[in-house]
Amino acid sequence: MDQLFNPDGIAIVGASSNPSKAGYVAIRNMKEKAYPGNVYPINVRESEILGYPCYASLKDVQGNIDLLVLIMPSKMIYTVMDELDQRMEEKGDVKFLVCAAADYAETKTPEGIDRQERLMRTARRFGIRVVGPNCIGVIDNRSRVDTTFVDTGVPFTSFGEPTGITFLSQSGALASAVLMEGASRVVPVLYNKFISIGNMADVDFVDLLDYFETDESTRVIGIYMEGYNDGKRLAASLRRVSLKKPIVVLKVGRSALGANAANSHTGSMAGSDRVYDAMFKQNGVIRVGTINEMIDTLQAFDRMPLPAGGNLFLYSQAGGPGIYCTDAISHYQELTMPVVSDDTKARLAASQLPMANICHPEGYADITASASVRNHVDGLQIVLEEKNVDAVIFITVVPTFLPQKELAEELVKMEQAVNHPGKPVYYCIMAGAYTALARGIMEKNGLCTFDSPERAVMAARNMCVYAAFRARHKKEA
Amino acid sequence: MDQLFNPDGIAIVGASSNPSKAGYVAIRNMKEKAYPGNVYPINVRESEILGYPCYASLKDVQGNIDLLVLIMPSKMIYTVMDELDQRMEEKGDVKFLVCAAADYAETKTPEGIDRQERLMRTARRFGIRVVGPNCIGVIDNRSRVDTTFVDTGVPFTSFGEPTGITFLSQSGALASAVLMEGASRVVPVLYNKFISIGNMADVDFVDLLDYFETDESTRVIGIYMEGYNDGKRLAASLRRVSLKKPIVVLKVGRSALGANAANSHTGSMAGSDRVYDAMFKQNGVIRVGTINEMIDTLQAFDRMPLPAGGNLFLYSQAGGPGIYCTDAISHYQELTMPVVSDDTKARLAASQLPMANICHPEGYADITASASVRNHVDGLQIVLEEKNVDAVIFITVVPTFLPQKELAEELVKMEQAVNHPGKPVYYCIMAGAYTALARGIMEKNGLCTFDSPERAVMAARNMCVYAAFRARHKKEA
Repeated sequence: MDQLFNPDGIAIVGASSNPSKAGYVAIRNMKEKAYPGNVYPINVRESEILGYPCYASLKDVQGNIDLLVLIMPSKMIYTVMDELDQRMEEKGDVKFLVCAAADYAETKTPEGIDRQERLMRTARRFGIRVVGPNCIGVIDNRSRVDTTFVDTGVPFTSFGEPTGITFLSQSGALASAVLMEGASRVVPVLYNKFISIGNMADVDFVDLLDYFETDESTRVIGIYMEGYNDGKRLAASLRRVSLKKPIVVLKVGRSALGANAANSHTGSMAGSDRVYDAMFKQNGVIRVGTINEMIDTLQAFDRMPLPAGGNLFLYSQAGGPGIYCTDAISHYQELTMPVVSDDTKARLAASQLPMANICHPEGYADITASASVRNHVDGLQIVLEEKNVDAVIFITVVPTFLPQKELAEELVKMEQAVNHPGKPVYYCIMAGAYTALARGIMEKNGLCTFDSPERAVMAARNMCVYAAFRARHKKEA
Repeated sequence: MDQLFNPDGIAIVGASSNPSKAGYVAIRNMKEKAYPGNVYPINVRESEILGYPCYASLKDVQGNIDLLVLIMPSKMIYTVMDELDQRMEEKGDVKFLVCAAADYAETKTPEGIDRQERLMRTARRFGIRVVGPNCIGVIDNRSRVDTTFVDTGVPFTSFGEPTGITFLSQSGALASAVLMEGASRVVPVLYNKFISIGNMADVDFVDLLDYFETDESTRVIGIYMEGYNDGKRLAASLRRVSLKKPIVVLKVGRSALGANAANSHTGSMAGSDRVYDAMFKQNGVIRVGTINEMIDTLQAFDRMPLPAGGNLFLYSQAGGPGIYCTDAISHYQELTMPVVSDDTKARLAASQLPMANICHPEGYADITASASVRNHVDGLQIVLEEKNVDAVIFITVVPTFLPQKELAEELVKMEQAVNHPGKPVYYCIMAGAYTALARGIMEKNGLCTFDSPERAVMAARNMCVYAAFRARHKKEA
């Protein structure tokens, strides 16, 4: 798969100079990310697009093409494949083909099926691996490849460094949503690798999982799945990979109606949801219910150490959100609000204002809205030093009169200085746009922030479930 | 309560010229909202704050004071109440008192209890109604009163017209979060009335519910609740009001631990959660689980007509999100994806591209990512005209190559022109910041948008449950 994610030369059939066309946006993305290799737009009418010289046909490209991207209307597949046959006979250079266009076998029409067969005939003859059809393409933010036609609405320069999050999706639209939701976060999420596999005419979940297993820049894998036909093969692959790296799956078709819709969509039989659910549980795969839970969980795995257990201390600056969060924690049997030592209680009380609620109930502190920056930070540090605490949820609804920049900087400083290996802190900085300053500073320094208690708890629960799986299967890894 | 929400003269004890103090932000809020009455900051050291002349003591204010706000440190309550006694003997003008400061009876210390008793002694003697203590204050965005010390981070001028949403909260921090979360939405939410009731030393849920029942600008009521001691009285009030207006409650203390934390917080016994749950169900009160579900549901009730039933058509531009949403709909027994007539199916198919999936499964359409603006709008209109459809979830992940401004404007035009009374449409415009343009246009024109399918479904389910309650109890209203 190396040449898919790090190709020497990319040609785009269906390249366009019209900004309202997919074949323009793909080239614009490559330009914006400054892909260092050659980009060959194939367009018979234009001389150049965004500074890249155009070629009338595939056979006119002199340079090497590792990756061929098809965004032209599906009915043109016959001509394009004939040209590709010719090129492969002469140069034999193309290794990967991403067919982004829709209107192939997923339509279940004879025409659609025939188009996909034509595509695959050439691919099989020359050993070209195919991604798609009916997908949005491939991104590698380290090699700066982006064949998608998705505009995230956020300039590339606003993103930080690429994360260790790799995402693969059976649905193009859902992949777009994950891309754009990620881009809309306080600090935009730059995925490591990102691949939309559509109809899986060739490259599928297992091929990619096997590759990501040893891909060094992939620390955690997210998957959107509708269904896969070879359950045994999938289970074996998930098992092997999840012993090394966390896998987070959003699997739809939970309901009979959803499974029916899935069948109409990518044509895949979703199969019994209970079978999938059991397979995920057995193999340490974390199943999530929503797109936001997916991104939250991927970020938590990417940035934080796995907790040693489920003892989760709830450290809140506000009573209401604290109670609300207690309800959320109580919902999960994997999580416990731990009893801490009398010494920790005494030190915690001494670090706070007299009105603070220390450990009523156990494993909970409400430091109150009057808490200063020092109260916030010192108390958290004391909680982290307690041996019976595996992880902490920190909640604050930054009051208008508390300097949030200072709060964020002091929390970062504490996290960097204190030695509490293996103890993730889920920072819930509530209240929307007002706290963007604090969250921005914290996120840029590798802390994991959330905008609501229930989302922080969900991520904490997911980390905890995976940590338990890894602990149970230490010997196998 | 009229003088609480529309007072003639507001005095603020604890007014400050220091921007990092609550007593400054409250005055800044009043200034920013241009409250047209007199504002009297009480501050012995300053001559003016933000242009408002200061008074050394309550007795120095010559003008009328309907509403007295206390933000000073709690230990000063004795001096302040002595001054208030004197003023009431001489002028007898104060009708309402908002005690925003904390450190009263909620601390359960003899000192805190004594402070609250001192406050209430004067109040009872002169018939002054008290809001708080331990609250963040009161807002009325029509009369432009804002006694809170919360900076939403969004300039007041960015908000639209006041909504019909009235919110009351037992927790100040949670109220702040609701205020700031609302302010952070694509089009910031301006609440109609907003009140944080803290310890409920006097004014409580029932007093306010009774007032909101006939308050014309209140169309829907949101409540954050930890507990209330007189269940019968609360149930009777909820029942009466919810026969006229929807009530949406976020009640915490679901879990034993949460109830324990609630007891430590506002000192109220949360009582058995099952009793509350049954009481809410029986009286048509919509119980929500999260802050976002609360705001979503309040907005839906505020803007849209109640549906006639639970037949919810799912109209999606994308397969993946469509299946994901089908799962969410299937989760609720109140919702059904309806069978539409053959005529509707034929018209719908004729309005779409050949590859569109029309009604597989029933009550579902996937118009595909290739759909134009006209495909989006025309198909939706046809679905709305079908008699077996009570409401629609519309999903689009606006592709980069679809003009989102045009899409939004055409949807607004269609909604304004088409005659389909009583059919709410939940517009799920996915993918974060990129779709802010479309969502902004739609929201400003009264359409209800959501950023994820599960949130749209939740609001649809809540509207449907309440509509059924109203239908069942038509005669009582």
